Amino acid sequence: MVILLDTEGVRYVVPLRGGMAKVPRLGVVDTAGLEGRIGRRIELAGRPFLVLEPTLREQLLVLQRRAQIILPKDSFRLTLECNLRAGATAIEGGAGSGALTLVLLHLVAPNGRVVTYEVREDFARVAQGNVDRSALTQLWQLKLQDIRAGIDERGVDAVILDIPDPWEVVPLAHGALRPCGGFASYSPTMEQARETVLALRKYPFIDVRTLEILERPLEMGQGTRPAFEMLGHTGYITLATRVSETI
Amino acid sequence: MVILLDTEGVRYVVPLRGGMAKVPRLGVVDTAGLEGRIGRRIELAGRPFLVLEPTLREQLLVLQRRAQIILPKDSFRLTLECNLRAGATAIEGGAGSGALTLVLLHLVAPNGRVVTYEVREDFARVAQGNVDRSALTQLWQLKLQDIRAGIDERGVDAVILDIPDPWEVVPLAHGALRPCGGFASYSPTMEQARETVLALRKYPFIDVRTLEILERPLEMGQGTRPAFEMLGHTGYITLATRVSETI
Amino acid sequence: MVILLDTEGVRYVVPLRGGMAKVPRLGVVDTAGLEGRIGRRIELAGRPFLVLEPTLREQLLVLQRRAQIILPKDSFRLTLECNLRAGATAIEGGAGSGALTLVLLHLVAPNGRVVTYEVREDFARVAQGNVDRSALTQLWQLKLQDIRAGIDERGVDAVILDIPDPWEVVPLAHGALRPCGGFASYSPTMEQARETVLALRKYPFIDVRTLEILERPLEMGQGTRPAFEMLGHTGYITLATRVSETI
Amino acid sequence: MVILLDTEGVRYVVPLRGGMAKVPRLGVVDTAGLEGRIGRRIELAGRPFLVLEPTLREQLLVLQRRAQIILPKDSFRLTLECNLRAGATAIEGGAGSGALTLVLLHLVAPNGRVVTYEVREDFARVAQGNVDRSALTQLWQLKLQDIRAGIDERGVDAVILDIPDPWEVVPLAHGALRPCGGFASYSPTMEQARETVLALRKYPFIDVRTLEILERPLEMGQGTRPAFEMLGHTGYITLATRVSETI
Repeated sequence: MVILLDTEGVRYVVPLRGGMAKVPRLGVVDTAGLEGRIGRRIELAGRPFLVLEPTLREQLLVLQRRAQIILPKDSFRLTLECNLRAGATAIEGGAGSGALTLVLLHLVAPNGRVVTYEVREDFARVAQGNVDRSALTQLWQLKLQDIRAGIDERGVDAVILDIPDPWEVVPLAHGALRPCGGFASYSPTMEQARETVLALRKYPFIDVRTLEILERPLEMGQGTRPAFEMLGHTGYITLATRVSETI
Repeated sequence: MVILLDTEGVRYVVPLRGGMAKVPRLGVVDTAGLEGRIGRRIELAGRPFLVLEPTLREQLLVLQRRAQIILPKDSFRLTLECNLRAGATAIEGGAGSGALTLVLLHLVAPNGRVVTYEVREDFARVAQGNVDRSALTQLWQLKLQDIRAGIDERGVDAVILDIPDPWEVVPLAHGALRPCGGFASYSPTMEQARETVLALRKYPFIDVRTLEILERPLEMGQGTRPAFEMLGHTGYITLATRVSETI
Repeated sequence: MVILLDTEGVRYVVPLRGGMAKVPRLGVVDTAGLEGRIGRRIELAGRPFLVLEPTLREQLLVLQRRAQIILPKDSFRLTLECNLRAGATAIEGGAGSGALTLVLLHLVAPNGRVVTYEVREDFARVAQGNVDRSALTQLWQLKLQDIRAGIDERGVDAVILDIPDPWEVVPLAHGALRPCGGFASYSPTMEQARETVLALRKYPFIDVRTLEILERPLEMGQGTRPAFEMLGHTGYITLATRVSETI
Repeated sequence: MVILLDTEGVRYVVPLRGGMAKVPRLGVVDTAGLEGRIGRRIELAGRPFLVLEPTLREQLLVLQRRAQIILPKDSFRLTLECNLRAGATAIEGGAGSGALTLVLLHLVAPNGRVVTYEVREDFARVAQGNVDRSALTQLWQLKLQDIRAGIDERGVDAVILDIPDPWEVVPLAHGALRPCGGFASYSPTMEQARETVLALRKYPFIDVRTLEILERPLEMGQGTRPAFEMLGHTGYITLATRVSETI
């Protein structure tokens, strides 16, 4: 796909399947030659647009949302804390709208693998739609299973949870992770974060820690100041490294 | 290398060149079989240690510091905002101690490339030492040049600056970046961030924005609360996407 | 006046002039006996209300707003940093909607004095209306004058500014303040705060400092967490103590 | 007393009892005429000092600390949220080092009253010493009693708690407070804040709320930026207004 950006800052997703494509809110668009115009201006029905590459940021900006998504301030941090990289295997518990899935796929591409467990069919469908628009859908496996009932994979590089009761998955995560693999969990409330930390402390995990990340945009108008509006709270990130025994 | 972690939480870097290795503050260590003990316990002179893999996080924890480093809260965010991934080429202006370099190498591995411009020989030496301990040094090129005097590369995926006057490099960054490539700059003061934003607005860049990222650890003792001590401020992150023309 | 609070959390201001009072959005209310019902329930046309005393907090909650107001997080801090107390004289530069004026009057009551300089008649009118509803209007003097043209008073306890160019008033404030009197200024941008600090450094002031105050509500639902929405930024507070000579 | 400030920013407390006074770390000082030199420079043994008035801020800066104190960012906010003012009566549960006591005395002076309950004799002694240095000690009553065992006073304007289990005092506070009186509690952990909120919800209190206040100093050196070091967390403030019945 490519993204079209109009003068109002609105983004339109254009699938590149060759020939004409129907684009919601925009109409039928001739996609021939669009890929060669990345970063350049085009005109459609007399209106100017910029043609943008579907970078990770752009994919997240045009995401179809159903559940609350994990934002870049949180997802970029927790995935790299888990050491995800090209070729890695990541297990995701809870698909949400697929925002975190897209970050995981970005990091493990071109030859890694992401397995997502999701029990709710409606979430699974939305996530599937969002991942299918990326070029990385072949690295992804979606399981309509409850991750609390078991993780099928072994020796994985990371287990990342966005579910209401992550502490229930802690023993399963320990079993699935390879030595020095990364555990991460995202929870809105401090009680959830605490219960997860307490569970992690009972198993061989080191560097168990919980963080909150805040993001303040700075505005440069006539003067410089933090934005009057900011995100107050999204969730707590709980992180740990899986080891095989303790000292 | 592997990392040895003692019961006090102190980390020791052990190079794996085969045979005996001299480890600062620890003495001579027999490295035979260490790699096979990742995540497990060993004993050295009667003291227990955990053998840890040199993940990105571990590399940053054991970094030799000379200059102030860019912390994960900032480096993980800005590099992924720039869409860095396996195979990409990144230009870094200012090596510092090499902390950001290690994040860049992690993201572009196994087949990408990082080119770092640094004018100060002392910084270059420290960065070199830190990168050489990673397994990714072959993806890295260090140039003892002033990035303000020119960027030799063309069509790069990202230009990331940690220098006192990033606004001077904005036109050069535009010339070096491919369409939809990412620009990022890290600056301690609001005046630097502002001047960089004003420079970016004069060239074809979109989504010009400045962020501050704050990190609050949560402590789980008898009760739950944010840590009494937190980082106050590190720097502002200025981000932009390079396009070829504007609309 | 008293405040009536309905079951939806809406507040209504009821003036206590004896007999029937017309209350916007509520209709005509019999005020007889209301003052004796503070903290208790009444019924009006079959609807229940709580009768509340017009505390400082309540006065601020029911304030008629025209300009952006200085919020308690900022006004409570800066006025007490200026040592305001019963009997003090405070000069206010810029009336805004009178929110800060109400805090000043609260602190200098019952026998102090607040003099407010305001050039804009529309702001002055709104502030006058808000102050007149308090019981402290007799301690207040409103001057339709530009404070930058001069402060008439001498030996005052505090000068507090909410104007776009507070640095221009710094020398006048020094002249009006008594020894160890407090200077405070509230400005949205860091350039304004900086220019004010630089001006203060040129005169005999000590403890020149700029603060930003952030407020995070904590929500106690099924779990506990900071509110998803929070105020991002309001303004910077610049504070200083006036002395007569430096060391 | 007066405060002497030296060129290094160190403060010395000089009691004004007439004649010579012994000042810790400074030696014997002739206090004659000091009061008339407020805001001016003096020389002692060839060293210059500024003579400062013991404002509320100065009193807090020179406080002898034993327990962790409640800082201005929290104490200025919570006392004014409780509507404290000249003539009011405030009950304080937990003396700590007397920092909050000084703020309460400042606000209720010249004719109000503060009653402090403290069980620990060591805290009581430190608080007593700090309050005795203020000119307001005659407005203060210190009771070596456990506030959880009962509040003797009735019809008070505010009850303010800095004790480990404030929820136990909620029913007693309701009994002691006059209608529309203010309740405030300061607690380090979320669990304490939550339990206090849950207790308040069981009694006739309105506007039950918990806040965290953060303070960021701004530094104006060559450039402008938030301070690298900031206070991470001190405590949560829980506030409520006492009413007599609910609607």
